[in-house]
Order: sequence, then C-alpha cells, then structure tokens
Amino acid sequence: MNILIAIDSFKGSLTSAEAGEAAAAGIRAANPDAEIEVVPLADGGEGTVEALVQATGGELVRARVTGPLGEPVNAAYGILGDGTTAVIEIAEACGLPLIPEADRNPLEATSYGVGELILDAASRGARSLIVGLGGSATNDAGVGMLQALGCRFLDGAGEEVPRGGAALGAIRSADVSGLHPDIQSLDIQVACDVNNPLHGEQGAAYIYGPQKGATPEMVEELDSGLRNFAEVVEKELGKDIQEIPGAGAAGGLGAAFAGLLDAELRSGIELVLDTIGLEEKVRPADFVITGEGRMDAQSSMGKAAMGVAGLAEKHGVPVIALAGSATNEAASLNGKGMTAYFSILQEPITLEEAIRPEIARQNMETAAEQVFRLIGAVKPALPEVQRLK
Amino acid sequence: MNILIAIDSFKGSLTSAEAGEAAAAGIRAANPDAEIEVVPLADGGEGTVEALVQATGGELVRARVTGPLGEPVNAAYGILGDGTTAVIEIAEACGLPLIPEADRNPLEATSYGVGELILDAASRGARSLIVGLGGSATNDAGVGMLQALGCRFLDGAGEEVPRGGAALGAIRSADVSGLHPDIQSLDIQVACDVNNPLHGEQGAAYIYGPQKGATPEMVEELDSGLRNFAEVVEKELGKDIQEIPGAGAAGGLGAAFAGLLDAELRSGIELVLDTIGLEEKVRPADFVITGEGRMDAQSSMGKAAMGVAGLAEKHGVPVIALAGSATNEAASLNGKGMTAYFSILQEPITLEEAIRPEIARQNMETAAEQVFRLIGAVKPALPEVQRLK
Repeated sequence: MNILIAIDSFKGSLTSAEAGEAAAAGIRAANPDAEIEVVPLADGGEGTVEALVQATGGELVRARVTGPLGEPVNAAYGILGDGTTAVIEIAEACGLPLIPEADRNPLEATSYGVGELILDAASRGARSLIVGLGGSATNDAGVGMLQALGCRFLDGAGEEVPRGGAALGAIRSADVSGLHPDIQSLDIQVACDVNNPLHGEQGAAYIYGPQKGATPEMVEELDSGLRNFAEVVEKELGKDIQEIPGAGAAGGLGAAFAGLLDAELRSGIELVLDTIGLEEKVRPADFVITGEGRMDAQSSMGKAAMGVAGLAEKHGVPVIALAGSATNEAASLNGKGMTAYFSILQEPITLEEAIRPEIARQNMETAAEQVFRLIGAVKPALPEVQRLK
Repeated sequence: MNILIAIDSFKGSLTSAEAGEAAAAGIRAANPDAEIEVVPLADGGEGTVEALVQATGGELVRARVTGPLGEPVNAAYGILGDGTTAVIEIAEACGLPLIPEADRNPLEATSYGVGELILDAASRGARSLIVGLGGSATNDAGVGMLQALGCRFLDGAGEEVPRGGAALGAIRSADVSGLHPDIQSLDIQVACDVNNPLHGEQGAAYIYGPQKGATPEMVEELDSGLRNFAEVVEKELGKDIQEIPGAGAAGGLGAAFAGLLDAELRSGIELVLDTIGLEEKVRPADFVITGEGRMDAQSSMGKAAMGVAGLAEKHGVPVIALAGSATNEAASLNGKGMTAYFSILQEPITLEEAIRPEIARQNMETAAEQVFRLIGAVKPALPEVQRLK
C-alpha cells in the first residue's frame, strides 16, 4: 500500500513534518508493510520556507539584512534542492514580530531588507525565487525593497526619498534602470492569497494598516502616499499597479513584485504544491493523508489541506484529513474533494492541552493507526482480488 | 451494505437507542442505500430493561411494590417481545437512588419489593426472568425478596424475622417449602459481573456496605449476619451459598438467587447479547458499529462494546467502535477483536459540553458519516468486483 502524507502544520503545536511523521508512525503500527512518503506542506504563509526546504532536500541559509526599523536582523531563507531556486518569507526581513508592539509604525517601517535578502539569494546562484508575503510591518509599497535592488525614487528636489511609508507621498519620479542585472533575469513567483488593490478603502493602508500600528490619521497619510506612488509609477514607467489583485498585499509589496519586478502572484498553496511536485506524488498513491490544525469552512478557501484534496480528487485517490479539530462547517469539505475527515482528539480536553506537542503527536498517531486498521479490514474483505490500479 | 449498530448508552448523555440512531443518520448521509439495523444495547446494569424491551419489541410495565425502607414505590420492569420473559432491575425496587443519602441504612433496608416485582411478572405470565443486579441499598442476603416469595426465616422464638440486614443475625431456621409455585418453575438468569463471596473481607458488607451508608460497626454487624444466614442455610437446606462467585452481589441477593432460587449468574453483557440474539444479527452484517461513552482498558472487562466486538471477530465481521472518548489504553482493545475505534469528538471541549445530548448526537452523526465515507471510498477502489460473501 502506497501512502502519501502531506499535512499542513498544526500552528503552535506541530510542524508539518512532525504531524506527518506522527501519522506515518500510526500507519506503520496498523500496516508495517505500507510504503509511506511524508511531504512537508505549507500554504505560502509562515512555515513555507521550512516546508519547501525539507520537501526538496534543500538547505536553510541566513543573511544579515536591514530590519524594518533600520536595525540589522538575521534573516533565514531557503535554497531548494535544485540549488537554483530560493524561497524567502518577507516577514524574516520586515515582519511585525521583529518589532515590539509599542514601536510598530508603518510610516517608518521599510521593506529594504527584503531587497537585500533577494540580492543575497541571487549572489548564491538563485535563478528563481519563491516569495511568501504576509506578516509585514511595512506599508511602503515595496519601495525600500526596490531601492535595495538598485531602483531610485526621487522627491521634488531630485533627492532619493528616505525609507518608510511616510516618504511615499514625496516621490515625484521613479527610475528602475539601475535594477541589479541578476534581478532582471530572476524568475519570481509570489504566494499571495489576498486580492486587495494598492490603495483606497480596500487597499493596503485601510485594511492592514491598523494591525501594523497605524492610527486613523496615519492610515489616511499612508493611503495618500500609496496613491501618489501609483500615479508616479504610471506616469514615469507606464505601468498601472493600482488594480493588480493582490497589489495591496504586505503593505504594497504585492504591487512592487507584480508591477515592477514582473513577478507572478499565485495562490500560496498552488505555488507550494507545484514546487513540491505534489501531483506527481499523488498519482501513484493508494491513499493521501492531509490535514491541518483546524478544519472549518475556511479550509476550502485556498488552504493547504484542500489543495491536496483537490489533486487527490483529480486523480481519483481517496484523501483523508486528520485535523486537530473539525468544526460543524467542515462537512462542506466533503463536497470539495475530501473523502473523509477525522478530528484526532481522543478525549474531552482544552485547546491549551490539545496543542501540547506530545499530546497532539500521540493523538495523530492514534487516529492514523485506527483509520488504517479500518482500511486494512475493509480491503481484505474482498478476498483473492488484486487492486487493478 | 448491511450494517448492524449496537452501541452501549453514553451514560448521562445518550441512551443506547439515541446513540445508535445518530450513528445510523450519519451512515445514511454517507451511503443512502445502506441497510441499517439499530439494536439497543446494555451491559446488565442501568438501562438493561429499556434496552431489552426496545430490542425485542416488548413493553414496559409498572408495579407498586415495597420500597427499601418500607414505603411504596412505583417500579418499572419489562416484558420482552416473546411475552413470556420478564426483565427487572432490582434497583427499581430496592435501589440506592430511592433513598435520600442521609437515610441510607442497610441495617434497615429490605429487598422485599424485588420479590413482589417477581410475583407481579409471574402473574402476567412470565415463565423466564432476567435480573439486573446492581445499585441496591440493601444487605439482607435477599431474605426480604425470599419472604415476599413465600419463604420463611424464623428466629430462636420461632417468629418471622423483621426486614432489613440487622435481622440476619437472629435467623435460626429457614423454610423454603412455601415458595410460590410460579416461582418454583421460573427460569431465572441474573446479570452479575462481580465475584464477591457472601461474607468476609471480600463479601457484600465489607466491600459494598460503606457505599450504602454502613459505618464500620454496621459493616461488622452486617457481615456477622450474613455469616449466620449462610450457616443456617447450609444446616437447614444443605446448601453452601458462601462461596458462590457473585453471592455477595447486591447485598447478598446474588446468594439468594443462585443458592435458593436456582438462578444462573452470568456475565451481564453475555446475557444481554444472548437475549437480543445479537450473534444471529452479526453474522450477515458487512460492518458492525459499537461504542460506549468512554473506552479505556476497562472496556475489555465484560463491557458491552467488547462483547459485541467478540461476536463480530468470531464471524470475521469488521467492528468499529465510536466512543465518546478513548483513553490511551484503549489501544489494547485492538488486540481483543476491535477492528478500529474513533472518538466522536470534533473540537476541544469540556466533558460537560461533550455530554450535552445535542452535541453528542451531532458528533456521533459526523463521525459515523466520515467513517462510512472512508469505507465507501475504499470499497469502490476495487472496481468491478462483487463481495463474495
């Protein structure tokens, strides 16, 4: 029996690899002969670098770059197993967790370190780049990143504007001719699961500014700066970056990637599944096991487990989710390709207890073992028959 | 697909029938064509009358009898579908719940009402009797019951002894010649899952007296009375009732049933399964679903779910337990015939919430549906094959 395990991380409890190995242990207890492959999974958000590095046999590297408020930070990123694809999470260079809550201020925060991270990857031979957006502390439309990569944004006096969202309103001209040659040829794919435009009521400042520390007044200033930036880019470079779906992601980094670096913005899980080559692994499997910490109706909106389920359904492979918990609405997932789902919980328990790694691991092992005991009992119920597949 | 559901009650939450119907609803959601039979289950303890009446299409009847402290009580018992088998739970006539905690006193409590209940059943045509022991407030060696049935127990002055455990020490002679003729021919089977002898350190008074309200001094008096009763019975009737395994059950009612009424003491679940005819129902099933509120290592000690699993294993039918909760030790059940077990819990939750009937019902339905979605996906994975069975 050929079993593919691709479980998303149980946030705050188990990594994708830990959840997968626990499930594998349970399956082996039920069926010692099972051939099991555990593939780490992510949805383009936190944990994507780790999962892709593990899944492809790549390596984790570190670079010292400029943090969101100018202080140096040690940012980790990945070089995948092919040796030529780098994967970064922008939060490593400009993420909210890097700034104490009281100091968060998107007027000042810059994405400059993201550009440095990309240059570091290029210097190590990266020809392709995968980017996880999300968790940024910035609202600078990616101007900081673009400056690090060699672009210039000048104010009315012809001076380079300073870093941070506050400077966007001062930009009067844009010059991308200095873009580093390695970056010009870099193939960039960005995991982006939001559709916000760059500015306006659904834009970066209004929707995400407050959670980055912006007051209502700051939100207006930031939004006005984003609009000015989009107007300058359109006038100077002939590119309309305002309406690109996802332009407003990560404080406008979406606009910078898609509009100025010719990056492709893609669904995070699809990008991850493609990179892992999951479809090739699903096809020959007898069963696919997926799951995530909490399965609910939202799980169908681009989340990892449903992405796996979609591939399994496409190839007619039964796919079973083992979830930390499954809300009432999880039932709708059956209609979207999920063969069956089970919560791994075994006893009444608080959430705090349930996410303790040793408990979650044991519960995952138990649930996986029982599912495959059941499968083992059903299959031999048809005697003297070989699977035709 | 032919599915037999026999789930024990989820104590304090769902009756056996409610749990079974919820599972059936879930299975129908996964497989509308499934042929499902729900059989109420019990283990010989509380709920046995209800389960057997439902399982056999019998009826519940009531009789006004003498309560444990002499007050009249309305006791329910069952006439099974065959019209000639009665089933009683002795707790209905002499149970602890009938007495406020402060008034509990096994020196005074009598099993007299149990005898009246049996006479009532006989008067309605019962030729066989099934008895659930357990929960008694008495320690009278069943003397009260035997008196109600026509036996006489006299003191040194030749007077009938009064009711209650305190009178046992005064008994000097026993006369069973007046036993009601209907009772002489009654076939009695008793559900009894304890092995305690009548008296001594492992006897009725020492082991069960304290929970019935006996002080240490009362325990000694009761134990001495039980010993005297056993001696009189041996001398007068030539019967050794002390060492019968289970003689000490229900304050010595075990001794009275087994020693003086020629009843058979049996494992509760075996007696229930026999009465229901479960083995005949298991044999043609494709799957058996069982379960109980809490599955742990104790579940293997005569509990209902494991009894069902034993029959299913005997006939090679996969058996799946759906449990309210499953402790770590539940894993040992796999080695005892249980194909697989699943907790029905879907989310972190307190025990108080988990046992709310509407939540337990929904969780049971969800778990059963997902199990049969999985089964449905595994079976068609072997195309163009008919089950040979």
